[in-house]
Amino acid sequence: MSATIDSTPAADGYRMPAEFEPHDGCWMAWPKRPDNWRLDAGPAQAAYAAVAEAIAASEPVTMAVSDAQFERARSLLSPSIQVVEVSTDDAWIRDTGPTFVIDGAGGRRGVDWHFNAWGGIYSPWERDERVAAKVLEMEEADRYRAPLVLEGGSIHVDGEGTVLTTEECLLNRNRNPELGRGQIERLLREYLGAEKIVWLGPGVYDDETDGHVDNLACFARPGVVLLSWAEDESDPQAGISRDALARLEAATDARGRSFEVVRLPSPGPLETRAEEAAGVVPREGTLPRRAGDRLAASYANFYLGNSRLVMPLLDERHDDEAAAILQSCFPEREVVGAPSREILLGGGNIHCITQQVPSR
Amino acid sequence: MSATIDSTPAADGYRMPAEFEPHDGCWMAWPKRPDNWRLDAGPAQAAYAAVAEAIAASEPVTMAVSDAQFERARSLLSPSIQVVEVSTDDAWIRDTGPTFVIDGAGGRRGVDWHFNAWGGIYSPWERDERVAAKVLEMEEADRYRAPLVLEGGSIHVDGEGTVLTTEECLLNRNRNPELGRGQIERLLREYLGAEKIVWLGPGVYDDETDGHVDNLACFARPGVVLLSWAEDESDPQAGISRDALARLEAATDARGRSFEVVRLPSPGPLETRAEEAAGVVPREGTLPRRAGDRLAASYANFYLGNSRLVMPLLDERHDDEAAAILQSCFPEREVVGAPSREILLGGGNIHCITQQVPSR
Repeated sequence: MSATIDSTPAADGYRMPAEFEPHDGCWMAWPKRPDNWRLDAGPAQAAYAAVAEAIAASEPVTMAVSDAQFERARSLLSPSIQVVEVSTDDAWIRDTGPTFVIDGAGGRRGVDWHFNAWGGIYSPWERDERVAAKVLEMEEADRYRAPLVLEGGSIHVDGEGTVLTTEECLLNRNRNPELGRGQIERLLREYLGAEKIVWLGPGVYDDETDGHVDNLACFARPGVVLLSWAEDESDPQAGISRDALARLEAATDARGRSFEVVRLPSPGPLETRAEEAAGVVPREGTLPRRAGDRLAASYANFYLGNSRLVMPLLDERHDDEAAAILQSCFPEREVVGAPSREILLGGGNIHCITQQVPSR
Repeated sequence: MSATIDSTPAADGYRMPAEFEPHDGCWMAWPKRPDNWRLDAGPAQAAYAAVAEAIAASEPVTMAVSDAQFERARSLLSPSIQVVEVSTDDAWIRDTGPTFVIDGAGGRRGVDWHFNAWGGIYSPWERDERVAAKVLEMEEADRYRAPLVLEGGSIHVDGEGTVLTTEECLLNRNRNPELGRGQIERLLREYLGAEKIVWLGPGVYDDETDGHVDNLACFARPGVVLLSWAEDESDPQAGISRDALARLEAATDARGRSFEVVRLPSPGPLETRAEEAAGVVPREGTLPRRAGDRLAASYANFYLGNSRLVMPLLDERHDDEAAAILQSCFPEREVVGAPSREILLGGGNIHCITQQVPSR
């Protein structure tokens, strides 16, 4: 039910739509590994379940779950959420799932990127490498196998030809050391059906993904970018945000538009607490979780459902302000917050744990 | 996407339709365990693939495959066959999958029976026990959890209120020792939406399933039963077939009809060859495969697809005669044979490895 196609989406008239275009559903994957999620992943599972339920009010949600967790996940999620078996290494389907592309004539296919666990920092990853193909089977969507190591969190598109990404991640030698910037740009254009790549520099400070763009900035609509913004010059995030702003102000998109940039407050430095780190079982091959680690927190890491925007609740001092800005940018969507510290402790947030299935 | 329902199909107006009623598709599960399938299951996988392709010409086929076999199965099956991850212990989805029931008004649900690996002869079986729930999730069908150990191969229905089964299996103390015949009849009526149980005695000679009816007899249509028939009185199957015939001749169905019995030739005694047994890796907890073992071969173990009947090819001396009889019973279907000795060596045949999804 899923054939692998030798051509490229661009050659076949397919493009990746923006996240704010209509969805048929959303995929998530269930957390479990005790070397990344504290207390046998129990608190993370509760947080993931709350995100799933919040999205399910807006569009159908499918949860990919390993066999050993199947009954537990089924019991913790409401019946409206579909639970299917998919073996995973971890639970970041933004990065392991397919990137769906559509042709505007009823066709929907998927791009299956190569995956190397963010430059190899979480072993093993062979089950995660198989996730995209399995999702495409279940979605009955044909598959492009892109010759590029790429995680879905490292790209955003405006649906009108523009790709937003970061040099820190896409040009990192731990992903595609044999490819130069021009070659990567060409592959992005071909596999996303896009025309122009807008490069930001570094991503959010101390982000273990090597600066995924989806934690720093995203499109609110074509021509409008939301940017995680730190005011406090003592925070290294401030310089990163300034650099991104400068690049955006200097750039134009695929249609020749200049960007309007909307600043989202940075939740400020958040760190892993000792009791949080203590609940993780360290293991060789996994990035350790230590007390005092800076957490790569950002309100830009939200999910844009059909009728709801599900945003991370990170810090009571900033949640309301961030919610108000998001509501003003997306007046037709209900902005819903989900407590997401337990997700953040694992290395990402709500956008990282979701993958939309765009409507045909 | 699959709620577990506390009532019963009969109480909710649902019934199991006959296999000759229309299907939306067919499930299979991929063989792999080297303690049951010789040569690392390679020959069995080829046989399963051929059955899948034969059925796929008649209705959509979904293959349930464990993670470790996913890429191999995908590469051996044509793209029209959907390959999804489902962890299994073995590959008999007739027995581990759900029994679908419909209400005639667009509703389709599934019965998830308890499973104990045919009385516990193949350990472990906890993954197989989870198969039905996973299939129901993917089919978006709500689930009845029946308080009965039962394999789908141990029942046939005519779709008009009659259940055909065997005492050897359903009354076996290795399944439901706490239940008497009357209690089992009541549960069959409630969970299959049926009215009358017709009991045959023993199943096919030396059948490790304890005489599943689907290897001995089945409905060609309401009132007409196909029966595996051995003429040679030196074959212990002859007496079994005679006993079944006598019971059928003495019985009436739920509508009060007497049965017309059509005799299918028994392929005669077939045995496991030494080189076949040698390719299986023995393991504690698994029924051994020994040279000279009698194989429970039967032409009654076919699959009835929408436009095709896929029958086992078992013995050149009888295949053509069996095909002609089947063709005469199912004049509107194309009778297609699939070489099935490699399936038979594992303990069953084409009906055992398939599970229809009836149309709503």
